[in-house]
Amino acid sequence: MSENRGHSIGVFDSGIGGLTVVKALMEHLPFENITYFGDTARVPYGVKSVETIQSFSAQITDFLLDRQVKLLVIACNTMAAVASDIVKSRSNVPVLDVIDAGARAAVAASQRQSIGIIGTPTTVNSNAYARSIHALDNRVRVYSQACPLFVPLVEEGWLDHEVTRLTAQEYLKPVFVESVDTLVLGCTHYPLLKPLLQEVVGAKMTLIDSARTVAAQAAELLQSRQMYNEQRCPPSYHYVVTDIPLRFQTLGSRFLGRDMPQVQVVRFAG
Amino acid sequence: MSENRGHSIGVFDSGIGGLTVVKALMEHLPFENITYFGDTARVPYGVKSVETIQSFSAQITDFLLDRQVKLLVIACNTMAAVASDIVKSRSNVPVLDVIDAGARAAVAASQRQSIGIIGTPTTVNSNAYARSIHALDNRVRVYSQACPLFVPLVEEGWLDHEVTRLTAQEYLKPVFVESVDTLVLGCTHYPLLKPLLQEVVGAKMTLIDSARTVAAQAAELLQSRQMYNEQRCPPSYHYVVTDIPLRFQTLGSRFLGRDMPQVQVVRFAG
Repeated sequence: MSENRGHSIGVFDSGIGGLTVVKALMEHLPFENITYFGDTARVPYGVKSVETIQSFSAQITDFLLDRQVKLLVIACNTMAAVASDIVKSRSNVPVLDVIDAGARAAVAASQRQSIGIIGTPTTVNSNAYARSIHALDNRVRVYSQACPLFVPLVEEGWLDHEVTRLTAQEYLKPVFVESVDTLVLGCTHYPLLKPLLQEVVGAKMTLIDSARTVAAQAAELLQSRQMYNEQRCPPSYHYVVTDIPLRFQTLGSRFLGRDMPQVQVVRFAG
Repeated sequence: MSENRGHSIGVFDSGIGGLTVVKALMEHLPFENITYFGDTARVPYGVKSVETIQSFSAQITDFLLDRQVKLLVIACNTMAAVASDIVKSRSNVPVLDVIDAGARAAVAASQRQSIGIIGTPTTVNSNAYARSIHALDNRVRVYSQACPLFVPLVEEGWLDHEVTRLTAQEYLKPVFVESVDTLVLGCTHYPLLKPLLQEVVGAKMTLIDSARTVAAQAAELLQSRQMYNEQRCPPSYHYVVTDIPLRFQTLGSRFLGRDMPQVQVVRFAG
C-alpha cells in the first residue's frame, strides 16, 4: 500500500453537505490530499427510492476509484444507509461511512444506553443506525425522528432563527429528548445547527457529529494501516460536482468553513 | 386537428407539485384525457443550473410528444422560467405555461399596477414573471421574493402550522406586501398554502393561483381552436414518474385533491 500513500481520500455525497466531512478531515489530517464528489445535479437523494440511490452510489464509486483514491468515505447518510454494501462490493480500497462512525461514537458516549437519531426520512426509514448500533451492543435502545425541514433551513442560512428553533422544538418533542442521553446528528447538514440544537435539547445531551467522528475514524485507519501521506507539503484538494447550482459558492463556503475553491463539473450521461 | 381531439393534454413538472395543475384541469375540463409527467428522480429543479433544467425539459417534451398529446402544459414555474422557448421550439402542438398564465391573470387583476411574485430562487432569479408582465403592460411595477422553504413546508404537510406562518411573515415582510395589491403564487406547491398566505397578507390582497389560471387558459385555447374532446365518457388519466419517492401516495393525494392512482415509472438512461 505504501506506494499509494500520496493518493487522495475520496469523499462523496449527494450534494454539498458532505463538505462538513471534508472540513473535519482537513482538521484531523492536514497533510492528506482529498477529492470530493458532490452529485449536485441529482441532489437531494433523501426523497428518492432505494433502487435509484443504489444506482447513483455505484456510479460515483466507480468514478472515484478511476481517480485512484486510497480510501473512500461515504459522507452522505442517505447513501450510507441504503448503499454502503454496494459501495464496498465495488471497492478495492477501504470504505468508511458516516453511519458506522456515528453509531460507534454514540454507543461509546451513551451512559444510559439510550440513543436518539435524527436524519432525513430516508435515513430514518432505512433503520440503518439502529442496525449499526445493535451490531455493536444489542442492549441499546434507539429512538429516531425524521427532520425533513432541517436541510432546507440550513441551506436558507437560518442557523440561529426563530423558525428553526420552533421547528427543532417540534421535531425534538420532550418525549423524544427525555428518552435519550445521546443524540446523533445523522445528516451532514446538521453540524451547522449544532449550537441551536444543543440549546433546544439542553446541555446534558451529548450530540454526536458524524462528520467529526468519521474523520477521526479515517485518521485511525490511516495510522493503523500505515497509509498516511508522508509528504509534508500543502495537500491538494479537488472538488468535483455534477452541476453548479444556485448559491453554490455561498453554501459551499458555509459547509467547508473557508472559501470555496474552483470546482470541476462532470456530467454523467443521461 | 379534429382527429386529435381525443388525444391527451400533456402536463409536466419536475416532481408532483404540478398535480395542482392537473386538479385544476380536471375541474375546468372534466372530459379531457390527461397525461402527467413528473420527473421525481431528479426533483427539485429549483436548485439546478439553467443548462441542466433546459436539457431535462427537452427530454420530457420529446417523451410526451411521442405519446401524441394535443397540448402541452408546463406545470412547473422553474421550467417555464428558463426552458419554455426550448419546449416550444420542439413542439408541434400548442404550449401553455404557468408563468404566462399567472402573468396575464395578475395584470388583469392589479388595480394599482403593482404586482408581487413569490417562487423558488431559480424562478425569481430568472426574472421571467417580470418579463412576461412587462410584455403585457410595461407600466406595471413588479416586486419579487424567493421563498425556498415553502416547498419543503408543504411537503412536510405543515399547511397551517406556526412555523409556516412565521416563515411566511419573514418572507412577506410588510414592506414587500404593502407595495403590491396582487400576489402571484409562482410555484405549483403554493396553492396548498393559499389560506395561510391570505391570512398573512390580509384579505385585500388578490392571490393569483397559477394552477387555476393555466387551466382556465387551456379551456379557452381548446374552445377557440375547436380542440375539445367530444367524447362524453369518463376520461383517462395517466401518471408517469421517473421514480417512486418516499411518501409519494400521501403527497400525490394532497396535491391532486383525491386518491393518487396507479402510476407508471419510466427511467431515463444514465
